[in-house]
Amino acid sequence: MNLSRFSDYSLRVLMYAALKGDESFMIDEVTDAYGISRHHVAKVIHNLAKLCYLETRQGRGGGIRLACPANEIRLGKLIRETENQPVIVECFSVETNSCPISGHCRLKGLLAEAMEAFYESLNRHTLNDLVEGPLRKRLSRTLLH
Amino acid sequence: MNLSRFSDYSLRVLMYAALKGDESFMIDEVTDAYGISRHHVAKVIHNLAKLCYLETRQGRGGGIRLACPANEIRLGKLIRETENQPVIVECFSVETNSCPISGHCRLKGLLAEAMEAFYESLNRHTLNDLVEGPLRKRLSRTLLH
Repeated sequence: MNLSRFSDYSLRVLMYAALKGDESFMIDEVTDAYGISRHHVAKVIHNLAKLCYLETRQGRGGGIRLACPANEIRLGKLIRETENQPVIVECFSVETNSCPISGHCRLKGLLAEAMEAFYESLNRHTLNDLVEGPLRKRLSRTLLH
Repeated sequence: MNLSRFSDYSLRVLMYAALKGDESFMIDEVTDAYGISRHHVAKVIHNLAKLCYLETRQGRGGGIRLACPANEIRLGKLIRETENQPVIVECFSVETNSCPISGHCRLKGLLAEAMEAFYESLNRHTLNDLVEGPLRKRLSRTLLH
């Protein structure tokens, strides 16, 4: 069981944005801070802007920043959106499914129900919970130079 | 978000075993029924026997069968065991982690908590729930020839 790298990086970028607060930042700052691929992060930022979590402005004085307060970003909703259409097991994808019992198997429904429980649990927390309190100082020291 | 193929195949093998009831079966019956690789299924069966879900006997009159009643096999417990040590995001694996904030990031704990909710939801159901009632007939028709 794992989240996609896309979700993982989305969370990292948003945590970085939450630490920066109102201050804009450039893509290279994030990739340097985490030591991750610029190519992947660019796609992640593009998607997060499309989902209205980030604001991106070109040119002088431009940059990237949170598009809404960190305490309004529910983690379950966010991960559900960055995972898009998760293929928990083969039969979740009509295109690639080859399991002969998928038309009459109860498991798919039970797994979907369990995924709801997963997202509900994460929805009890917001992006702000990841960067507030004593953590903020330590995270800022590691990520913001 | 996806389960490992190992878990997926473990569930398929156990559903097959539950449909067979007390009757033993051979590995080729399962691989033929689902059209999946013998190599993978052999490993899955070996593991399920080690975890005491299946009984395997060699020789004449031997074969594979459930080692306990299907209504005693909780799906959450089973999948937790077949997933073994899931790497939900990079920092769950000490060996491969390269995220610089893993020492002071709250996300890992929240994801672990959400995984508990996922398993708890599945623990409300047993293997028997997957093969009982009207489903049994349809599954038997597809899988047992």
